[in-house]
Amino acid sequence: MSTQIAFIGMGVMGAPMAGHLLAAGYPVSVHTRTKAKAAALIKKGATWADSPAAAAKGVQMIFICVTDTPDVEAIVLGQGGIIETARKGTIVVDHSTISPAATREMADKLAAKGVTLLDAPVSGGDIGAKNATLSIMVGGDKVAFNKVEPLLKQIGKTITHCGGSGTGQLTKLVNQILGSVTLMAVCEALTFAHKNKLDLAKTIDALGAGAASSWQLMNLGPKMVAGNMRPGFMIDLQQKDLRLVEEAADESQTSLPATSLVHQLLTAAQAAGHGRSGTQALFKVMERLASLH
Amino acid sequence: MSTQIAFIGMGVMGAPMAGHLLAAGYPVSVHTRTKAKAAALIKKGATWADSPAAAAKGVQMIFICVTDTPDVEAIVLGQGGIIETARKGTIVVDHSTISPAATREMADKLAAKGVTLLDAPVSGGDIGAKNATLSIMVGGDKVAFNKVEPLLKQIGKTITHCGGSGTGQLTKLVNQILGSVTLMAVCEALTFAHKNKLDLAKTIDALGAGAASSWQLMNLGPKMVAGNMRPGFMIDLQQKDLRLVEEAADESQTSLPATSLVHQLLTAAQAAGHGRSGTQALFKVMERLASLH
Repeated sequence: MSTQIAFIGMGVMGAPMAGHLLAAGYPVSVHTRTKAKAAALIKKGATWADSPAAAAKGVQMIFICVTDTPDVEAIVLGQGGIIETARKGTIVVDHSTISPAATREMADKLAAKGVTLLDAPVSGGDIGAKNATLSIMVGGDKVAFNKVEPLLKQIGKTITHCGGSGTGQLTKLVNQILGSVTLMAVCEALTFAHKNKLDLAKTIDALGAGAASSWQLMNLGPKMVAGNMRPGFMIDLQQKDLRLVEEAADESQTSLPATSLVHQLLTAAQAAGHGRSGTQALFKVMERLASLH
Repeated sequence: MSTQIAFIGMGVMGAPMAGHLLAAGYPVSVHTRTKAKAAALIKKGATWADSPAAAAKGVQMIFICVTDTPDVEAIVLGQGGIIETARKGTIVVDHSTISPAATREMADKLAAKGVTLLDAPVSGGDIGAKNATLSIMVGGDKVAFNKVEPLLKQIGKTITHCGGSGTGQLTKLVNQILGSVTLMAVCEALTFAHKNKLDLAKTIDALGAGAASSWQLMNLGPKMVAGNMRPGFMIDLQQKDLRLVEEAADESQTSLPATSLVHQLLTAAQAAGHGRSGTQALFKVMERLASLH
């Protein structure tokens, strides 16, 4: 008999991820705050559960994909949370990007009940979720990791066991530092180019093959040039992740001056109404500083 | 009969570039401050000239590859400079990375004598120069560009005509903004990872395929992890280029807070004795801020 699983969170990430597991033949019970978001999956054979506790009842693995630390804490430890029904030996896989410190605390509380928590945040966005090409960074017990790996392969392409509990979250935060500061490089470079009347598309072509190149330049640069601010990855969510970075940097006493600068300038982007725009809207802030609009 | 050319500057970049042109069959007269550096090329058939003016005499194209703005100004306009002997119709190709404003001024002075200046800074480093895979960013008259393009193809792979005089230099400065701020992203990310006891090599592997990826991460990240500070591209030269960026940003009133930050932290790297290390030694500064050494 196939492993019984629960999937909690039917957002733009969770819904397609749960869909891949269902399509691979795993019986899935689902729960999410807004039941309507689970309708498509229920139609395909998933079972609705009225609470995380109900979803978790009798399953071997529980997947979570929600937004922030308090959301996961409520699902795991709150009233009607999975800690009420999850049995000994169950593995909880948290795909949300949340605090590494809070992750370790929850892992300890679940371990006291014989339940293993793996932190498994993802990158690759809604397109990666749809195409099952996500990168998944996993922290926690290696034996549990080996058990869930075949299921993770249904939703992701690059799957890394990073180390003990919290290291998946920490690795995701490294990803967010890289992404946001590299984004800043692209914004300053293209603003300088624009202010000096260079042809921006030609500039990206001229530099894209060399030491200046990055995913951010090649993928978000053309969107900046075209004035296409649709997300991709929303600034409001990037800011949530950078707050997690700053918190973890404080705790570990790591000085991150460039990351802090980007976090502040993304606040300016939010003030300009770009919270729900893609992260490339940071370009609008830099252009405004240069009085280009 | 083949186009007669002069090549001035036999540094780690100029010597192999001149070598490719000589190997392609162009008669080359060479000049450089330290004659010994031209010895290998002279052995292969290049002609020695005692001054830029002597090198420039009777040739159709003059290539320059030296370090900074005053060096180029001395070669072009100084005593014994090429302006003394270059005849009407000559094209001067300056491969040095120098001030865009000074470039436009020199272009005007040469134009008064019927000589065309093209700014043509390169990226790709000494390896790109040896393998003839440089990126070359060219500013100035398009007709002159078309004439020198076959020769540029002997030394580079990606050759872009960026626009009028100075736009090659401006595009190179865009390259330096991108490279240095992306480098900073890698340094902060790996310092955060190190301080939080992640496996650094594994972290680079986990993130290198996604939105956090960059040339800097994939090429300099492993050097940082290995403690290999050999240049690549020296911090002293990066600082020279960032001074050109700041100057051009001042002139065009472009605010570049992240680039300025990196420039300041590279000054800290110089203070720590890393001026002649590769740019990846910025990692040492960030680790020091985190008290990791």
